[in-house]
Amino acid sequence: MGGDHAPAVVVAGARAAWDEDGLPLVLFGPPDALGDAGPVPVFAASEVIAMDADPGASVRRMKDSSLVRAAEAVRDGWACAMVSAGNTGAAMAASLLRIGRIRGISRPAIAVGIVSPGGKPTVLLDSGANAECQPEWMLQFGQMGAVYSRLRYDIARPRVGLMSIGEESVKGNKLVKDAHELMSVDGWLDAVDAHFVGNVEGRDLMSPDLDVAVTDGFVGNVALKAMEGCLDGIVATLEQQAGDDAHILAAARRLYESLEPGQTGAAMLLGVRGVVMISHGSSSAWAITNALRTAQDMVRAGVVDALERTVGRAGAPAVAAPPGAPGS
Amino acid sequence: MGGDHAPAVVVAGARAAWDEDGLPLVLFGPPDALGDAGPVPVFAASEVIAMDADPGASVRRMKDSSLVRAAEAVRDGWACAMVSAGNTGAAMAASLLRIGRIRGISRPAIAVGIVSPGGKPTVLLDSGANAECQPEWMLQFGQMGAVYSRLRYDIARPRVGLMSIGEESVKGNKLVKDAHELMSVDGWLDAVDAHFVGNVEGRDLMSPDLDVAVTDGFVGNVALKAMEGCLDGIVATLEQQAGDDAHILAAARRLYESLEPGQTGAAMLLGVRGVVMISHGSSSAWAITNALRTAQDMVRAGVVDALERTVGRAGAPAVAAPPGAPGS
Repeated sequence: MGGDHAPAVVVAGARAAWDEDGLPLVLFGPPDALGDAGPVPVFAASEVIAMDADPGASVRRMKDSSLVRAAEAVRDGWACAMVSAGNTGAAMAASLLRIGRIRGISRPAIAVGIVSPGGKPTVLLDSGANAECQPEWMLQFGQMGAVYSRLRYDIARPRVGLMSIGEESVKGNKLVKDAHELMSVDGWLDAVDAHFVGNVEGRDLMSPDLDVAVTDGFVGNVALKAMEGCLDGIVATLEQQAGDDAHILAAARRLYESLEPGQTGAAMLLGVRGVVMISHGSSSAWAITNALRTAQDMVRAGVVDALERTVGRAGAPAVAAPPGAPGS
Repeated sequence: MGGDHAPAVVVAGARAAWDEDGLPLVLFGPPDALGDAGPVPVFAASEVIAMDADPGASVRRMKDSSLVRAAEAVRDGWACAMVSAGNTGAAMAASLLRIGRIRGISRPAIAVGIVSPGGKPTVLLDSGANAECQPEWMLQFGQMGAVYSRLRYDIARPRVGLMSIGEESVKGNKLVKDAHELMSVDGWLDAVDAHFVGNVEGRDLMSPDLDVAVTDGFVGNVALKAMEGCLDGIVATLEQQAGDDAHILAAARRLYESLEPGQTGAAMLLGVRGVVMISHGSSSAWAITNALRTAQDMVRAGVVDALERTVGRAGAPAVAAPPGAPGS
């Protein structure tokens, strides 16, 4: 029921995943509102959390909402993954309250794959789950991002960078300086077989030389949305300059489609005990299909198990924890 | 002497401003290194602060550097403005230590004009001068940005927004929530005849509906560089998709040239007692010429006087200061 064009595009995307891939899925929502779901089974949920509703309060109050019911299906094990294009905060709250965190992981983070021309996507996290962060959480974001980069984009030894405003370790604000110190301690990234490349800058987000960019949820969200706005603005400028030149207008369309947010499939909420994919609110049916496929891929790749093993409590004793680090 | 392609492109840009506009200027640097400056007078300065030198230490030690000498020329009143494409931190340090702050302005900020397709540029500040900020400084950034937006882009009543991760005033981190509260108090933006539109997001930076975006120097710098990287990445993707289609390749070139950072002329360091323009390190000769023209425009527009009058101590008593605000 979530998303700017819900439920029509969500249902259409789900039907395509069912028809084309035989992907086993179930839709949650008021059956009347969902319309014709074709062969896709519908699990009745009577309430809908609005896009602008208060996340925590609505998840606590609306126990029969599509989002809460979907999260419960993951918690109870009869669904392996959940996909939502709705209220991001509510999807996070439902995941935290119903599915729960992986033991030993301090805070879940939203991981977004940013398309890098000429290379594999760069995973940016946290993209908005935590507006305020601790340095220890950021270290874990780096670990989680590395695991995700390997399983989702098949990168053997991900290069992890810390977002700052200069490459030198003395640059940045206090949070970043503290996180840098923590991330420079040997062992922590070895545990997830990743390589710490030090501070990186905003320019590196679309670079093929970086696999994981770690930042707090405030900075990550601003940077991500700035890049989305930039794509829209640049394509609009190209179209404006094209006038009625159909050849260039077609190129502009192709350019947009290859880079628009739906292209990357969906963001994943890393650190909860289930696969939770968060699609862009403006997702097309095609983007929803793509998100469902990615969810299936991530279940098959065992990303939650891998996070539990390497970043969660089970993984922690294998490496020497610096003082004050989570799990120490 | 500063910039990735210095001094050749800087000298070329200066000569063009002299030849084409009759712009009265002087170059600072080792005369031998500067090469043929043509009719442009050269003021000998024996030292050069490197792009990666420690800003504070180098400005204190290298008293005969081109940057320090240029700042002294502004301080002593025989130059009205200074333009540098060099080490940004050093340009700031030289400005602070030699030229000094406007009385009553807590912290200078770097203001960058971001090209908005279909509208006038949006002024983003702080774009990197202050990695850590106080809410009171951010209120002043809003005021300085409004004055600058009016004088540089001729916007009668600038719309000022606060960068956050959601439009609601409760969204964001503590700094942004506190700044929002302060900026919502009547009077402060009236004093500079601006309009506070509340929280804005990364997407709004390239929107024609926003004139000034206020943020701390860490977030501003990351967002700005993310957008620069995005432009490079998008144009590279367009070129890649064009293959050997000369028509589209030409469109890609035109697109890049209309949006690249040099297009906006240069950033201005607002809050010091002189016009200080900071050009992108990768500036072309054309971008340097453009920065010199903008410097002249800003001197003629009386931007420093206007800031002193409305934001500095001279302007403060005209409005009721909320408790804890600067100047109260």
